[in-house]
Amino acid sequence: MINSFLMIGQSNMAGRGYLTDVKQIYDEKIKMLVNGRWQTMTEPINFDRPTSGIGLAASFAGAWRLKNDQEEIGLIPCADGGTSLDDWADGGVLFENAVLQTKLALRTSKLNGILWHQGENDSFAGLSDLYYDKLNIIIDAFRRELKAPDIPFITGGLGDYLSGGRYGKYFTEYNQVNHALQKLAETKPNCYFVTANELTANVDGLHFDAISLRRFGVRYFNSFFDKKNILVPPADENMLIEIIQDRVLTKKDQAALLEIDFAIGKMSLADLEEKLALLNRQSI
Amino acid sequence: MINSFLMIGQSNMAGRGYLTDVKQIYDEKIKMLVNGRWQTMTEPINFDRPTSGIGLAASFAGAWRLKNDQEEIGLIPCADGGTSLDDWADGGVLFENAVLQTKLALRTSKLNGILWHQGENDSFAGLSDLYYDKLNIIIDAFRRELKAPDIPFITGGLGDYLSGGRYGKYFTEYNQVNHALQKLAETKPNCYFVTANELTANVDGLHFDAISLRRFGVRYFNSFFDKKNILVPPADENMLIEIIQDRVLTKKDQAALLEIDFAIGKMSLADLEEKLALLNRQSI
Repeated sequence: MINSFLMIGQSNMAGRGYLTDVKQIYDEKIKMLVNGRWQTMTEPINFDRPTSGIGLAASFAGAWRLKNDQEEIGLIPCADGGTSLDDWADGGVLFENAVLQTKLALRTSKLNGILWHQGENDSFAGLSDLYYDKLNIIIDAFRRELKAPDIPFITGGLGDYLSGGRYGKYFTEYNQVNHALQKLAETKPNCYFVTANELTANVDGLHFDAISLRRFGVRYFNSFFDKKNILVPPADENMLIEIIQDRVLTKKDQAALLEIDFAIGKMSLADLEEKLALLNRQSI
Repeated sequence: MINSFLMIGQSNMAGRGYLTDVKQIYDEKIKMLVNGRWQTMTEPINFDRPTSGIGLAASFAGAWRLKNDQEEIGLIPCADGGTSLDDWADGGVLFENAVLQTKLALRTSKLNGILWHQGENDSFAGLSDLYYDKLNIIIDAFRRELKAPDIPFITGGLGDYLSGGRYGKYFTEYNQVNHALQKLAETKPNCYFVTANELTANVDGLHFDAISLRRFGVRYFNSFFDKKNILVPPADENMLIEIIQDRVLTKKDQAALLEIDFAIGKMSLADLEEKLALLNRQSI
Protein backbone atom coordinates (compact mmCIF):
# COMPACT_ATOMS: atom_id res chain seq x y z
CA MET A 1 0.00 0.00 0.00
CA ILE A 2 1.41 3.35 -1.10
CA ASN A 3 1.60 6.14 1.49
CA SER A 4 0.08 9.13 -0.24
CA PHE A 5 0.25 12.90 0.28
CA LEU A 6 -1.98 15.48 -1.33
CA MET A 7 -0.25 18.60 -2.70
CA ILE A 8 -2.45 21.72 -2.80
CA GLY A 9 -1.95 25.47 -2.95
CA GLN A 10 -0.57 27.80 -5.59
CA SER A 11 2.56 28.07 -7.72
CA ASN A 12 5.12 27.57 -4.97
CA MET A 13 3.53 24.22 -4.09
CA ALA A 14 3.38 23.25 -7.77
CA GLY A 15 7.01 24.38 -8.06
CA ARG A 16 8.78 26.81 -10.35
CA GLY A 17 12.42 25.94 -9.59
CA TYR A 18 14.59 25.57 -12.69
CA LEU A 19 15.14 21.88 -13.50
CA THR A 20 18.79 22.48 -14.36
CA ASP A 21 19.66 24.02 -10.97
CA VAL A 22 19.57 20.83 -8.89
CA LYS A 23 20.30 17.14 -9.28
CA GLN A 24 17.42 14.85 -10.23
CA ILE A 25 15.66 12.78 -7.56
CA TYR A 26 14.65 9.45 -9.07
CA ASP A 27 13.55 6.45 -7.05
CA GLU A 28 11.06 3.82 -8.16
CA LYS A 29 9.59 3.84 -4.65
CA ILE A 30 8.60 7.50 -5.05
CA LYS A 31 5.42 7.72 -7.15
CA MET A 32 3.18 10.46 -8.47
CA LEU A 33 -0.47 10.26 -9.47
CA VAL A 34 -1.32 10.91 -13.14
CA ASN A 35 -4.79 10.17 -14.54
CA GLY A 36 -5.57 8.27 -11.33
CA ARG A 37 -2.58 5.94 -11.78
CA TRP A 38 0.81 5.81 -10.08
CA GLN A 39 4.07 6.22 -11.96
CA THR A 40 7.62 6.80 -10.83
CA MET A 41 8.04 10.46 -9.90
CA THR A 42 9.85 12.80 -12.24
CA GLU A 43 9.86 16.58 -12.02
CA PRO A 44 7.83 18.60 -12.77
CA ILE A 45 5.41 16.62 -10.61
CA ASN A 46 2.65 19.22 -10.62
CA PHE A 47 2.46 20.31 -14.26
CA ASP A 48 -0.04 23.14 -13.83
CA ARG A 49 1.72 25.58 -16.18
CA PRO A 50 4.36 25.46 -18.94
CA THR A 51 6.62 27.13 -16.36
CA SER A 52 6.37 24.37 -13.75
CA GLY A 53 9.60 22.81 -12.54
CA ILE A 54 11.23 21.76 -9.27
CA GLY A 55 8.88 21.77 -6.27
CA LEU A 56 9.20 21.00 -2.59
CA ALA A 57 7.47 17.61 -2.80
CA ALA A 58 10.40 15.76 -4.40
CA SER A 59 12.82 16.32 -1.52
CA PHE A 60 9.94 15.82 0.93
CA ALA A 61 9.49 12.37 -0.60
CA GLY A 62 13.24 11.75 -0.64
CA ALA A 63 13.47 12.60 3.08
CA TRP A 64 10.46 10.37 3.77
CA ARG A 65 12.23 7.51 1.99
CA LEU A 66 15.30 7.89 4.22
CA LYS A 67 13.03 6.98 7.14
CA ASN A 68 10.99 4.35 5.23
CA ASP A 69 13.50 2.24 3.39
CA GLN A 70 11.13 -0.48 2.20
CA GLU A 71 7.98 1.58 1.71
CA GLU A 72 6.50 3.49 -1.21
CA ILE A 73 5.35 7.09 -1.14
CA GLY A 74 2.90 8.64 -3.61
CA LEU A 75 2.35 12.31 -4.38
CA ILE A 76 -1.03 13.62 -5.55
CA PRO A 77 -0.34 16.89 -7.42
CA CYS A 78 -3.28 19.33 -7.38
CA ALA A 79 -1.72 22.76 -6.81
CA ASP A 80 -2.52 25.52 -9.27
CA GLY A 81 -0.59 28.73 -9.88
CA GLY A 82 -2.00 32.14 -8.98
CA THR A 83 -4.94 30.82 -6.98
CA SER A 84 -6.49 32.51 -3.94
CA LEU A 85 -8.27 30.99 -0.94
CA ASP A 86 -11.57 31.88 -2.60
CA ASP A 87 -10.50 29.77 -5.58
CA TRP A 88 -9.93 26.89 -3.15
CA ALA A 89 -13.36 27.09 -1.49
CA ASP A 90 -15.40 23.92 -0.96
CA GLY A 91 -17.41 23.20 -4.11
CA GLY A 92 -15.09 25.04 -6.49
CA VAL A 93 -13.27 23.18 -9.26
CA LEU A 94 -9.87 23.17 -7.51
CA PHE A 95 -11.35 21.70 -4.34
CA GLU A 96 -13.44 19.17 -6.25
CA ASN A 97 -10.51 18.13 -8.43
CA ALA A 98 -8.24 17.63 -5.41
CA VAL A 99 -10.87 15.56 -3.59
CA LEU A 100 -11.57 13.44 -6.68
CA GLN A 101 -7.89 12.83 -7.40
CA THR A 102 -7.33 11.83 -3.79
CA LYS A 103 -10.30 9.47 -3.89
CA LEU A 104 -8.88 7.82 -7.01
CA ALA A 105 -5.51 7.57 -5.25
CA LEU A 106 -7.14 6.03 -2.18
CA ARG A 107 -8.08 2.96 -4.23
CA THR A 108 -4.41 2.00 -4.02
CA SER A 109 -2.97 4.12 -1.23
CA LYS A 110 -3.43 5.38 2.31
CA LEU A 111 -3.51 9.15 2.78
CA ASN A 112 -0.73 10.21 5.15
CA GLY A 113 -0.92 13.97 4.98
CA ILE A 114 -1.74 17.16 3.11
CA LEU A 115 0.97 19.58 1.97
CA TRP A 116 -0.14 23.19 1.55
CA HIS A 117 1.67 26.26 0.26
CA GLN A 118 -0.39 29.27 -0.70
CA GLY A 119 -0.91 32.87 0.30
CA GLU A 120 0.69 35.20 -2.23
CA ASN A 121 -2.72 35.79 -3.80
CA ASP A 122 -4.20 36.71 -0.42
CA SER A 123 -1.41 39.16 0.49
CA PHE A 124 -3.07 42.41 -0.57
CA ALA A 125 -6.25 44.49 -0.35
CA GLY A 126 -7.06 43.43 3.21
CA LEU A 127 -7.46 39.75 2.23
CA SER A 128 -4.93 38.68 4.86
CA ASP A 129 -7.44 39.63 7.60
CA LEU A 130 -9.67 36.81 6.36
CA TYR A 131 -6.88 34.27 5.81
CA TYR A 132 -7.16 32.43 9.12
CA ASP A 133 -10.91 31.92 8.93
CA LYS A 134 -11.03 31.02 5.25
CA LEU A 135 -8.21 28.46 5.41
CA ASN A 136 -9.66 27.01 8.61
CA ILE A 137 -12.90 26.27 6.75
CA ILE A 138 -11.04 24.80 3.76
CA ILE A 139 -9.02 22.44 5.97
CA ASP A 140 -12.21 21.25 7.68
CA ALA A 141 -13.84 20.67 4.29
CA PHE A 142 -10.93 18.58 2.98
CA ARG A 143 -10.81 16.53 6.18
CA ARG A 144 -14.55 15.94 6.01
CA GLU A 145 -14.67 15.02 2.31
CA LEU A 146 -11.68 12.72 2.61
CA LYS A 147 -13.00 11.18 5.84
CA ALA A 148 -9.68 11.97 7.48
CA PRO A 149 -10.51 14.22 10.46
CA ASP A 150 -7.02 14.03 11.98
CA ILE A 151 -4.92 14.08 8.81
CA PRO A 152 -1.76 16.18 9.27
CA PHE A 153 -1.94 19.47 7.37
CA ILE A 154 1.52 20.99 6.80
CA THR A 155 1.81 24.63 5.76
CA GLY A 156 4.83 26.76 4.90
CA GLY A 157 5.63 30.44 5.08
CA LEU A 158 5.75 32.91 2.22
CA GLY A 159 9.27 34.01 1.24
CA ASP A 160 10.72 37.22 2.63
CA TYR A 161 11.91 38.07 -0.88
CA LEU A 162 8.29 38.96 -1.69
CA SER A 163 8.79 42.50 -0.41
CA GLY A 164 11.27 43.22 -3.23
CA GLY A 165 11.50 42.51 -6.93
CA ARG A 166 9.22 43.11 -9.88
CA TYR A 167 6.00 42.16 -8.08
CA GLY A 168 7.04 43.33 -4.59
CA LYS A 169 4.59 46.18 -4.40
CA TYR A 170 1.65 43.81 -4.67
CA PHE A 171 2.39 41.65 -1.65
CA THR A 172 2.01 44.22 1.11
CA GLU A 173 0.41 41.74 3.51
CA TYR A 174 2.58 38.64 3.17
CA ASN A 175 3.72 38.96 6.78
CA GLN A 176 0.13 38.94 8.00
CA VAL A 177 -0.51 35.77 5.96
CA ASN A 178 2.52 34.18 7.62
CA HIS A 179 1.11 35.14 11.01
CA ALA A 180 -2.27 33.62 10.11
CA LEU A 181 -0.55 30.37 9.04
CA GLN A 182 1.36 30.25 12.33
CA LYS A 183 -1.77 30.96 14.33
CA LEU A 184 -3.53 28.08 12.56
CA ALA A 185 -0.63 25.79 13.46
CA GLU A 186 -0.91 26.89 17.09
CA THR A 187 -4.67 26.57 17.38
CA LYS A 188 -5.83 23.83 15.02
CA PRO A 189 -5.15 20.15 15.79
CA ASN A 190 -2.62 18.42 13.53
CA CYS A 191 -1.77 21.60 11.64
CA TYR A 192 1.86 22.63 11.38
CA PHE A 193 3.89 25.56 10.08
CA VAL A 194 7.30 25.48 8.40
CA THR A 195 9.44 28.59 8.13
CA ALA A 196 10.68 29.92 4.79
CA ASN A 197 13.58 31.70 6.48
CA GLU A 198 16.77 31.91 4.39
CA LEU A 199 14.99 30.71 1.25
CA THR A 200 15.55 32.69 -1.93
CA ALA A 201 13.77 33.34 -5.22
CA ASN A 202 14.15 33.02 -8.97
CA VAL A 203 14.92 36.25 -10.82
CA ASP A 204 11.18 36.90 -10.90
CA GLY A 205 11.23 37.60 -7.15
CA LEU A 206 8.03 35.58 -6.96
CA HIS A 207 8.92 31.90 -6.90
CA PHE A 208 11.30 29.96 -4.69
CA ASP A 209 14.37 28.80 -6.58
CA ALA A 210 15.12 25.11 -6.99
CA ILE A 211 17.65 24.70 -4.16
CA SER A 212 15.35 26.58 -1.77
CA LEU A 213 12.54 24.17 -2.65
CA ARG A 214 14.82 21.21 -1.95
CA ARG A 215 15.44 22.76 1.51
CA PHE A 216 11.75 23.56 2.02
CA GLY A 217 10.77 19.96 1.25
CA VAL A 218 13.15 18.65 3.90
CA ARG A 219 11.64 21.11 6.40
CA TYR A 220 8.13 19.99 5.48
CA PHE A 221 9.20 16.40 6.06
CA ASN A 222 10.76 17.24 9.45
CA SER A 223 7.51 18.88 10.44
CA PHE A 224 5.48 15.85 9.31
CA PHE A 225 7.80 13.33 10.91
CA ASP A 226 8.13 15.09 14.28
CA LYS A 227 4.59 16.48 14.24
CA LYS A 228 5.79 19.94 15.14
CA ASN A 229 6.36 23.39 13.72
CA ILE A 230 9.73 24.10 12.12
CA LEU A 231 10.55 27.68 13.04
CA VAL A 232 14.31 27.56 12.53
CA PRO A 233 16.05 26.13 9.44
CA PRO A 234 17.46 22.68 10.35
CA ALA A 235 21.25 22.70 10.53
CA ASP A 236 21.55 19.49 8.53
CA GLU A 237 19.17 20.25 5.67
CA ASN A 238 21.82 20.76 2.99
CA MET A 239 23.51 17.51 4.01
CA LEU A 240 20.20 15.67 3.78
CA ILE A 241 19.58 17.08 0.32
CA GLU A 242 22.95 15.73 -0.83
CA ILE A 243 22.11 12.30 0.59
CA ILE A 244 18.71 12.29 -1.11
CA GLN A 245 20.02 13.49 -4.48
CA ASP A 246 23.07 11.20 -4.43
CA ARG A 247 21.18 8.01 -3.58
CA VAL A 248 22.63 5.14 -5.64
CA LEU A 249 20.20 4.32 -8.45
CA THR A 250 19.05 0.72 -8.79
CA LYS A 251 19.59 -1.00 -12.13
CA LYS A 252 15.86 -0.68 -12.76
CA ASP A 253 16.00 3.08 -12.05
CA GLN A 254 18.97 3.49 -14.40
CA ALA A 255 17.26 1.51 -17.17
CA ALA A 256 14.09 3.57 -16.79
CA LEU A 257 16.06 6.83 -17.14
CA LEU A 258 17.82 5.50 -20.26
CA GLU A 259 14.43 4.60 -21.76
CA ILE A 260 13.19 8.15 -21.12
CA ASP A 261 16.25 9.66 -22.82
CA PHE A 262 15.67 7.38 -25.80
CA ALA A 263 11.96 8.15 -26.01
CA ILE A 264 12.54 11.89 -26.13
CA GLY A 265 15.17 11.53 -28.84
CA LYS A 266 18.24 12.29 -26.70
CA MET A 267 19.81 8.91 -27.50
CA SER A 268 19.97 6.64 -30.56
CA LEU A 269 18.65 3.08 -30.45
CA ALA A 270 22.20 1.74 -30.80
CA ASP A 271 23.35 3.82 -27.83
CA LEU A 272 20.38 2.74 -25.76
CA GLU A 273 20.98 -0.94 -26.46
CA GLU A 274 24.68 -0.63 -25.69
CA LYS A 275 24.00 1.11 -22.39
CA LEU A 276 21.29 -1.34 -21.38
CA ALA A 277 23.64 -4.24 -22.15
CA LEU A 278 26.39 -2.60 -20.06
CA LEU A 279 23.93 -2.10 -17.23
CA ASN A 280 22.86 -5.72 -17.33
CA ARG A 281 26.48 -6.86 -17.01
CA GLN A 282 26.96 -4.83 -13.81
CA SER A 283 26.82 -6.77 -10.59
CA ILE A 284 24.64 -4.35 -8.60
CA MET B 1 -19.02 29.29 -23.60
CA ILE B 2 -15.97 27.22 -24.50
CA ASN B 3 -16.43 24.35 -26.98
CA SER B 4 -14.71 21.42 -25.34
CA PHE B 5 -13.28 18.12 -26.57
CA LEU B 6 -12.24 15.19 -24.41
CA MET B 7 -8.91 13.53 -25.30
CA ILE B 8 -8.68 9.84 -24.34
CA GLY B 9 -6.58 6.86 -25.33
CA GLN B 10 -2.93 5.96 -24.96
CA SER B 11 0.42 7.58 -25.75
CA ASN B 12 -0.30 8.61 -29.34
CA MET B 13 -3.31 10.62 -28.13
CA ALA B 14 -1.26 12.15 -25.31
CA GLY B 15 1.47 12.86 -27.87
CA ARG B 16 5.16 12.00 -28.01
CA GLY B 17 6.26 14.24 -30.89
CA TYR B 18 9.47 16.17 -30.21
CA LEU B 19 8.68 19.78 -29.29
CA THR B 20 11.58 21.08 -31.36
CA ASP B 21 10.38 19.44 -34.61
CA VAL B 22 7.44 21.75 -35.35
CA LYS B 23 6.47 25.38 -34.84
CA GLN B 24 4.50 26.26 -31.72
CA ILE B 25 0.72 26.73 -31.91
CA TYR B 26 -0.29 29.48 -29.49
CA ASP B 27 -3.67 31.19 -29.51
CA GLU B 28 -5.46 32.58 -26.48
CA LYS B 29 -8.72 31.19 -27.87
CA ILE B 30 -7.34 27.63 -27.65
CA LYS B 31 -7.55 26.44 -24.04
CA MET B 32 -6.64 23.32 -22.11
CA LEU B 33 -8.07 22.07 -18.82
CA VAL B 34 -5.69 21.84 -15.85
CA ASN B 35 -6.97 21.22 -12.33
CA GLY B 36 -10.51 21.87 -13.58
CA ARG B 37 -9.59 25.34 -14.91
CA TRP B 38 -8.94 26.63 -18.42
CA GLN B 39 -5.63 28.11 -19.46
CA THR B 40 -4.16 28.98 -22.85
CA MET B 41 -2.93 25.80 -24.51
CA THR B 42 0.76 25.05 -24.64
CA GLU B 43 2.31 21.71 -25.55
CA PRO B 44 2.62 19.19 -24.04
CA ILE B 45 -1.13 19.40 -23.43
CA ASN B 46 -1.50 15.91 -22.02
CA PHE B 47 1.43 15.59 -19.61
CA ASP B 48 1.01 11.93 -18.72
CA ARG B 49 4.72 11.08 -18.85
CA PRO B 50 8.07 12.90 -18.75
CA THR B 51 8.28 11.96 -22.44
CA SER B 52 5.08 13.71 -23.52
CA GLY B 53 5.32 16.31 -26.27
CA ILE B 54 3.48 17.28 -29.43
CA GLY B 55 0.09 15.60 -29.86
CA LEU B 56 -2.65 15.66 -32.46
CA ALA B 57 -5.00 17.88 -30.44
CA ALA B 58 -3.09 21.13 -31.01
CA SER B 59 -3.48 21.16 -34.80
CA PHE B 60 -7.02 19.80 -34.36
CA ALA B 61 -7.76 22.90 -32.30
CA GLY B 62 -5.92 25.14 -34.76
CA ALA B 63 -8.00 23.76 -37.65
CA TRP B 64 -11.17 24.21 -35.58
CA ARG B 65 -10.24 27.85 -35.02
CA LEU B 66 -9.90 28.46 -38.78
CA LYS B 67 -13.61 27.63 -39.01
CA ASN B 68 -14.60 29.37 -35.76
CA ASP B 69 -12.87 32.71 -35.81
CA GLN B 70 -14.59 34.26 -32.79
CA GLU B 71 -15.07 31.14 -30.66
CA GLU B 72 -13.01 29.42 -28.01
CA ILE B 73 -12.06 25.75 -27.98
CA GLY B 74 -11.01 23.81 -24.87
CA LEU B 75 -9.13 20.52 -24.71
CA ILE B 76 -9.60 18.10 -21.80
CA PRO B 77 -6.45 15.93 -21.66
CA CYS B 78 -7.01 12.48 -20.12
CA ALA B 79 -4.99 10.07 -22.31
CA ASP B 80 -2.48 7.80 -20.60
CA GLY B 81 0.47 6.02 -22.18
CA GLY B 82 0.59 2.24 -22.49
CA THR B 83 -3.04 1.65 -21.55
CA SER B 84 -5.28 -1.11 -22.91
CA LEU B 85 -9.04 -1.20 -23.41
CA ASP B 86 -9.32 -3.12 -20.15
CA ASP B 87 -7.58 -0.20 -18.43
CA TRP B 88 -10.27 2.07 -19.90
CA ALA B 89 -13.24 0.02 -18.70
CA ASP B 90 -16.18 1.75 -16.99
CA GLY B 91 -15.41 2.11 -13.28
CA GLY B 92 -11.64 2.03 -13.63
CA VAL B 93 -9.52 5.03 -12.63
CA LEU B 94 -8.86 6.21 -16.21
CA PHE B 95 -12.56 6.18 -17.05
CA GLU B 96 -13.53 7.83 -13.77
CA ASN B 97 -10.85 10.49 -14.12
CA ALA B 98 -11.91 11.33 -17.67
CA VAL B 99 -15.58 11.58 -16.66
CA LEU B 100 -14.76 13.74 -13.64
CA GLN B 101 -12.48 16.07 -15.59
CA THR B 102 -15.15 16.46 -18.26
CA LYS B 103 -17.80 17.20 -15.64
CA LEU B 104 -15.57 19.91 -14.15
CA ALA B 105 -15.04 21.27 -17.67
CA LEU B 106 -18.78 21.27 -18.33
CA ARG B 107 -19.26 23.92 -15.65
CA THR B 108 -17.78 26.37 -18.15
CA SER B 109 -17.98 24.62 -21.52
CA LYS B 110 -20.14 22.60 -23.87
CA LEU B 111 -18.81 19.19 -24.89
CA ASN B 112 -18.45 19.02 -28.69
CA GLY B 113 -16.72 15.71 -29.18
CA ILE B 114 -14.45 12.94 -27.97
CA LEU B 115 -11.06 12.29 -29.58
CA TRP B 116 -9.76 8.73 -29.24
CA HIS B 117 -6.47 7.12 -30.25
CA GLN B 118 -5.59 3.79 -28.75
CA GLY B 119 -4.96 0.22 -29.76
CA GLU B 120 -1.26 -0.58 -29.63
CA ASN B 121 -1.79 -2.30 -26.29
CA ASP B 122 -4.56 -4.46 -27.76
CA SER B 123 -2.55 -5.50 -30.83
CA PHE B 124 -1.26 -8.87 -29.59
CA ALA B 125 -2.25 -12.15 -27.94
CA GLY B 126 -5.66 -12.30 -29.61
CA LEU B 127 -6.86 -9.10 -27.93
CA SER B 128 -7.76 -7.56 -31.30
CA ASP B 129 -10.64 -10.07 -31.61
CA LEU B 130 -12.28 -8.36 -28.63
CA TYR B 131 -11.50 -4.79 -29.68
CA TYR B 132 -14.79 -3.99 -31.39
CA ASP B 133 -16.98 -5.19 -28.53
CA LYS B 134 -14.87 -3.70 -25.75
CA LEU B 135 -14.58 -0.24 -27.30
CA ASN B 136 -18.26 -0.28 -28.21
CA ILE B 137 -19.10 -0.71 -24.52
CA ILE B 138 -16.64 1.99 -23.46
CA ILE B 139 -18.12 4.51 -25.92
CA ASP B 140 -21.63 3.76 -24.62
CA ALA B 141 -20.42 4.23 -21.04
CA PHE B 142 -18.84 7.62 -21.76
CA ARG B 143 -21.93 8.80 -23.62
CA ARG B 144 -24.15 7.67 -20.78
CA GLU B 145 -22.05 9.16 -17.96
CA LEU B 146 -21.63 12.44 -19.81
CA LYS B 147 -25.31 12.53 -20.78
CA ALA B 148 -24.25 13.01 -24.39
CA PRO B 149 -25.77 10.08 -26.30
CA ASP B 150 -24.99 11.51 -29.74
CA ILE B 151 -21.58 13.04 -29.05
CA PRO B 152 -19.19 12.55 -31.99
CA PHE B 153 -16.48 9.99 -31.24
CA ILE B 154 -13.48 10.34 -33.56
CA THR B 155 -10.96 7.51 -33.78
CA GLY B 156 -7.71 7.19 -35.71
CA GLY B 157 -5.74 4.32 -37.14
CA LEU B 158 -2.57 2.79 -35.76
CA GLY B 159 0.57 3.62 -37.75
CA ASP B 160 1.86 1.20 -40.39
CA TYR B 161 5.36 1.71 -38.98
CA LEU B 162 4.30 -0.54 -36.07
CA SER B 163 5.29 -3.64 -38.02
CA GLY B 164 8.95 -2.59 -37.96
CA GLY B 165 11.34 -1.11 -35.44
CA ARG B 166 12.41 -2.08 -31.95
CA TYR B 167 8.94 -3.06 -30.74
CA GLY B 168 7.58 -4.31 -34.08
CA LYS B 169 7.39 -7.93 -33.08
CA TYR B 170 4.87 -7.13 -30.34
CA PHE B 171 2.18 -5.54 -32.51
CA THR B 172 1.22 -8.49 -34.67
CA GLU B 173 -2.48 -7.54 -34.71
CA TYR B 174 -2.43 -3.81 -35.37
CA ASN B 175 -4.16 -4.31 -38.71
CA GLN B 176 -7.02 -6.14 -37.02
CA VAL B 177 -7.38 -3.28 -34.56
CA ASN B 178 -7.57 -0.86 -37.48
CA HIS B 179 -10.28 -3.00 -39.01
CA ALA B 180 -12.22 -3.02 -35.73
CA LEU B 181 -11.99 0.79 -35.54
CA GLN B 182 -13.26 1.10 -39.11
CA LYS B 183 -16.08 -1.33 -38.42
CA LEU B 184 -17.12 0.75 -35.41
CA ALA B 185 -17.17 3.86 -37.59
CA GLU B 186 -19.37 2.04 -40.12
CA THR B 187 -21.80 0.57 -37.63
CA LYS B 188 -22.03 2.91 -34.64
CA PRO B 189 -23.84 6.26 -34.89
CA ASN B 190 -21.63 9.36 -34.76
CA CYS B 191 -18.41 7.36 -34.70
CA TYR B 192 -15.74 8.15 -37.27
CA PHE B 193 -12.39 6.77 -38.39
CA VAL B 194 -9.36 8.70 -39.60
CA THR B 195 -6.59 7.02 -41.55
CA ALA B 196 -2.97 7.09 -40.38
CA ASN B 197 -1.71 6.51 -43.93
CA GLU B 198 1.63 8.17 -44.74
CA LEU B 199 2.27 9.05 -41.10
CA THR B 200 5.71 8.23 -39.71
CA ALA B 201 7.29 7.53 -36.33
CA ASN B 202 9.96 8.74 -33.97
CA VAL B 203 13.15 6.65 -33.89
CA ASP B 204 11.40 4.42 -31.34
CA GLY B 205 9.14 3.08 -34.11
CA LEU B 206 6.32 3.35 -31.60
CA HIS B 207 5.12 6.93 -31.52
CA PHE B 208 4.02 9.25 -34.30
CA ASP B 209 6.53 12.02 -34.91
CA ALA B 210 5.57 15.66 -34.41
CA ILE B 211 4.83 16.58 -38.02
CA SER B 212 2.71 13.42 -38.44
CA LEU B 213 0.68 14.42 -35.41
CA ARG B 214 0.12 17.89 -36.87
CA ARG B 215 -1.24 16.12 -39.99
CA PHE B 216 -3.28 13.67 -37.94
CA GLY B 217 -4.91 16.51 -36.00
CA VAL B 218 -6.03 18.20 -39.23
CA ARG B 219 -7.51 14.87 -40.37
CA TYR B 220 -9.34 14.44 -37.06
CA PHE B 221 -10.76 17.93 -37.51
CA ASN B 222 -11.88 17.23 -41.08
CA SER B 223 -13.64 14.12 -39.82
CA PHE B 224 -15.33 16.07 -37.01
CA PHE B 225 -16.29 18.99 -39.24
CA ASP B 226 -17.66 16.93 -42.14
CA LYS B 227 -19.00 14.12 -39.91
CA LYS B 228 -17.40 11.48 -42.07
CA ASN B 229 -14.53 9.03 -42.17
CA ILE B 230 -11.22 10.25 -43.58
CA LEU B 231 -9.78 7.32 -45.50
CA VAL B 232 -7.39 9.22 -47.77
CA PRO B 233 -4.89 11.86 -46.55
CA PRO B 234 -6.32 15.29 -47.47
CA ALA B 235 -4.31 16.95 -50.24
CA ASP B 236 -4.20 20.29 -48.43
CA GLU B 237 -3.18 19.14 -44.96
CA ASN B 238 0.39 20.43 -45.09
CA MET B 239 -0.84 23.81 -46.30
CA LEU B 240 -3.36 23.97 -43.47
CA ILE B 241 -0.65 23.16 -40.94
CA GLU B 242 1.42 26.08 -42.21
CA ILE B 243 -1.58 28.41 -41.94
CA ILE B 244 -2.29 27.23 -38.38
CA GLN B 245 1.32 27.46 -37.23
CA ASP B 246 1.96 30.80 -38.92
CA ARG B 247 -1.13 32.55 -37.52
CA VAL B 248 -0.17 36.11 -36.54
CA LEU B 249 0.06 36.31 -32.75
CA THR B 250 -1.97 38.99 -31.00
CA LYS B 251 -0.11 41.40 -28.73
CA LYS B 252 -1.60 39.56 -25.75
CA ASP B 253 -0.33 36.23 -27.09
CA GLN B 254 3.14 37.68 -27.64
CA ALA B 255 3.24 39.19 -24.14
CA ALA B 256 2.14 35.89 -22.59
CA LEU B 257 4.94 34.02 -24.40
CA LEU B 258 7.49 36.59 -23.20
CA GLU B 259 6.25 36.15 -19.62
CA ILE B 260 6.71 32.38 -19.92
CA ASP B 261 10.29 32.78 -21.19
CA PHE B 262 11.01 35.13 -18.28
CA ALA B 263 9.43 32.82 -15.69
CA ILE B 264 11.54 29.84 -16.79
CA GLY B 265 14.73 31.89 -16.68
CA LYS B 266 15.30 32.19 -20.43
CA MET B 267 15.19 35.99 -20.30
CA SER B 268 16.38 38.67 -17.85
CA LEU B 269 13.97 41.14 -16.27
CA ALA B 270 15.58 43.98 -18.23
CA ASP B 271 15.09 42.09 -21.51
CA LEU B 272 11.51 41.28 -20.64
CA GLU B 273 10.66 44.87 -19.83
CA GLU B 274 12.33 46.13 -23.00
CA LYS B 275 10.46 43.63 -25.14
CA LEU B 276 7.13 44.34 -23.46
CA ALA B 277 7.67 48.07 -23.99
CA LEU B 278 8.47 47.48 -27.67
CA LEU B 279 5.36 45.35 -28.02
CA ASN B 280 3.18 48.05 -26.47
CA ARG B 281 4.47 50.60 -28.96
CA GLN B 282 3.44 48.42 -31.91
CA SER B 283 0.24 49.38 -33.66
CA ILE B 284 -1.21 45.87 -34.06
